[in-house]
Amino acid sequence: MKQLDYFFHPKSVAIIGASHTPGKIGYAILANFLGAGFERKIYPVNPDTTPILGLNVYKSVLDIKDDLDLVVIVVPAALVPDALKECVKKKIEAIVLISAGFSEIGEEGKKLEMKCKRIVEGVYTRIIGPNCVGIYDPYTRVDTLFLSRDRCGRPKEGNIAFISQSGAVGSTILDWLTEEDVGISKFISYGNAMDLDDCDFLEYLGDDKNTKVITVYLEGIEASGQKFMKIVKNVTKKKPIIILKAGKTEKGLKAVLSHTGSLGGSNKIYSAAFKQTGVIEVNTWEELFDFARGFSTQPLPQGNRIAIVTDGGGFGVLATDEADRQNLQLPEPSEKLKKEFAKVLPAYAVLHNPIDLTGDTNAERYRVVIEGCLKSNEFDGIIAITLFQVPTLEKEVVDQIVELHRKYDKPLIACAAGGKFSQELSRKLIQGGVPVFSTPERAVKTMGALIKYKAWLNK
Amino acid sequence: MKQLDYFFHPKSVAIIGASHTPGKIGYAILANFLGAGFERKIYPVNPDTTPILGLNVYKSVLDIKDDLDLVVIVVPAALVPDALKECVKKKIEAIVLISAGFSEIGEEGKKLEMKCKRIVEGVYTRIIGPNCVGIYDPYTRVDTLFLSRDRCGRPKEGNIAFISQSGAVGSTILDWLTEEDVGISKFISYGNAMDLDDCDFLEYLGDDKNTKVITVYLEGIEASGQKFMKIVKNVTKKKPIIILKAGKTEKGLKAVLSHTGSLGGSNKIYSAAFKQTGVIEVNTWEELFDFARGFSTQPLPQGNRIAIVTDGGGFGVLATDEADRQNLQLPEPSEKLKKEFAKVLPAYAVLHNPIDLTGDTNAERYRVVIEGCLKSNEFDGIIAITLFQVPTLEKEVVDQIVELHRKYDKPLIACAAGGKFSQELSRKLIQGGVPVFSTPERAVKTMGALIKYKAWLNK
Repeated sequence: MKQLDYFFHPKSVAIIGASHTPGKIGYAILANFLGAGFERKIYPVNPDTTPILGLNVYKSVLDIKDDLDLVVIVVPAALVPDALKECVKKKIEAIVLISAGFSEIGEEGKKLEMKCKRIVEGVYTRIIGPNCVGIYDPYTRVDTLFLSRDRCGRPKEGNIAFISQSGAVGSTILDWLTEEDVGISKFISYGNAMDLDDCDFLEYLGDDKNTKVITVYLEGIEASGQKFMKIVKNVTKKKPIIILKAGKTEKGLKAVLSHTGSLGGSNKIYSAAFKQTGVIEVNTWEELFDFARGFSTQPLPQGNRIAIVTDGGGFGVLATDEADRQNLQLPEPSEKLKKEFAKVLPAYAVLHNPIDLTGDTNAERYRVVIEGCLKSNEFDGIIAITLFQVPTLEKEVVDQIVELHRKYDKPLIACAAGGKFSQELSRKLIQGGVPVFSTPERAVKTMGALIKYKAWLNK
Repeated sequence: MKQLDYFFHPKSVAIIGASHTPGKIGYAILANFLGAGFERKIYPVNPDTTPILGLNVYKSVLDIKDDLDLVVIVVPAALVPDALKECVKKKIEAIVLISAGFSEIGEEGKKLEMKCKRIVEGVYTRIIGPNCVGIYDPYTRVDTLFLSRDRCGRPKEGNIAFISQSGAVGSTILDWLTEEDVGISKFISYGNAMDLDDCDFLEYLGDDKNTKVITVYLEGIEASGQKFMKIVKNVTKKKPIIILKAGKTEKGLKAVLSHTGSLGGSNKIYSAAFKQTGVIEVNTWEELFDFARGFSTQPLPQGNRIAIVTDGGGFGVLATDEADRQNLQLPEPSEKLKKEFAKVLPAYAVLHNPIDLTGDTNAERYRVVIEGCLKSNEFDGIIAITLFQVPTLEKEVVDQIVELHRKYDKPLIACAAGGKFSQELSRKLIQGGVPVFSTPERAVKTMGALIKYKAWLNK
């Protein structure tokens, strides 16, 4: 068992600062733990030992007889050093320190943080935080977020890990992922990174069997640049790391300084470091999760030859524009393939690439053309633009595409947009393992990310 | 009354090719007209005069005694010339020619199209199409789209006009706009532009009182470049024109040729023409409608000094990055303003710009800071990032922001993302006239578009 496992697979948890008062953070965390279906032992700690939510309350972790794997601390900053000392005495492995009021508030806070740091120096206790919302693991139901589930949803089980320096960005995106029905493996918000830092989490997630792709919101690297480079280079050989670095412009960097105080060095250095280590850098958090959804569900393409199949010529053109920007190849289908396609296509269909099935398409045309592209050795991946508004297109097209995608080991990414009817069919594609994006550009960019990562692995 | 008014405000409509068979296009169009609550006279035309959907059927438009303002033609291409001749004889003003099988299918089709063109030369009859889905006007309920409302929603009344060369792109986006609850003034899909072209529509919409902003999906200009420049320059002085030009890359341009056959000339020429005439050019259709929603709801900013107000520092940084890319100024609030803000803000709030109300904000902080920025002469527009996941933020913040937005004549654009709770509050903001975008970048880019258009007007 690795030490970080104590955070995500604890057999028992204590919450120092568990509160009797609904609305307080210390109450919310306890209530969330209980509501999450976390089936291990939970020990509230508070000087007032009146039971909370039916649980016995302890004055100190030292009063708890049971071994404790994880301790969550939510007491005011000034009380944190004493709480930490008791945890060290109890030989706690893992602490999530939610409390704020440390280095982010200035000199006084910095001193307090240094004091806390010294308490765990040389001992086996490791800390996430302070000034963070902590961790969430849908598999083990560990959930230290103090945001109620009404306001902030929790994503289902999945294979995307998400690390966020910022708690607000992190929880907003968790809520959004829940709504989008995207699953995650683990979420970590680490705030000031007093002890455990970005590198520790990346290294751990690199070996985490539930995690297939790692996404990161970053304002600045907390570890040394050298350590970061070394660890990341190792992890990206195993699985993709996608990073959204905020503060990319001069003004943005200034804003970072007043936010987390991360001293990042110039963005050119970051971008160069990302490039050298195979990190996929993105510009917006929409892109962060577009790419993550691609890696989460698709096999890697063997090359950059893409077929665009569409029932709307205009969307085909927009996809082509983006493919050109991404340096993807759009080879024309061979004569042999064209002959095969011509059997089900009308004379006015376009057999170049994009392959335009036209606005009176049926499911059969999609099936034949997509299967032809998948089984030939002419293409490494398929972009399927399925505008479901077309009146002649049977709903079955969705099951057929899902089946083809399962049968062949090539990435297939769809594009569809619209109202209820279209969303219902899109959802079926997504549930069948085919990601669907609302614009052709997003679909093609995601394919581009898969191709670039594969090229980096081949180097 | 202008001639194009006959298309959108007809007192009577005939449908040549109205069909008795559900599932056929000629049936769908008639059914849609009836279902749309179009309260004028509707005359189906078909050689078989058995009534359809309870309406009397006529063999020819010439058999109809009533004056006809608008005729929709959906017969096979080969029958179109005769139908047109009868329309000319009946002195019809406006024809929407849905039928396909003209210049888009090659030489033979081109000849047929020329033949049709000659029939209306020198007469008063004007044609939209062929090879198009036609027009939709939510105010007058004119709806020639053959797509059923189940598959393809129709947007509500609004002030955004949308012109699309491509029928598939057009109808997909209409469906998407319906789902997003964005209203439009008029939709025009004009296909091969045999008679009326992009310039005619732009000129008409420039004077249309229901239209505040014009959006265009374009593969190539059908009119002459000179005519286009002259008309557009005139219209952009009155209202913004936003254009998504497909086929921007070399490969994309090739794809356009196999789609609509538009000969566009190079993209550099397009971009230069757009710049010279004040057209706002966008890269994706998401951007097309982001900007449209900005212009649709916001007053124009007097300058480029923006305040970013946020409860999540990270989103503030991302907004700052985009503001820098858009060349927007983010001046620091004056000492006077800071003092005013400090009355309601805790010591750890950040009073630079972005102004970070921090993750324990309440509605009061938003109210005071946003009103301060709106009434001061230090800022020309506000970006309000409202992450509703924050547990201390009261729902009332939404009403307060809407009220402030009504009180002051400055653009205010919001950013929020998340699940049901967040979406419910966002919807209230949108209904109150404040557009909400899911990423800070989209919100800031939209503000940038307003600023650039205003700067062009001032030149």
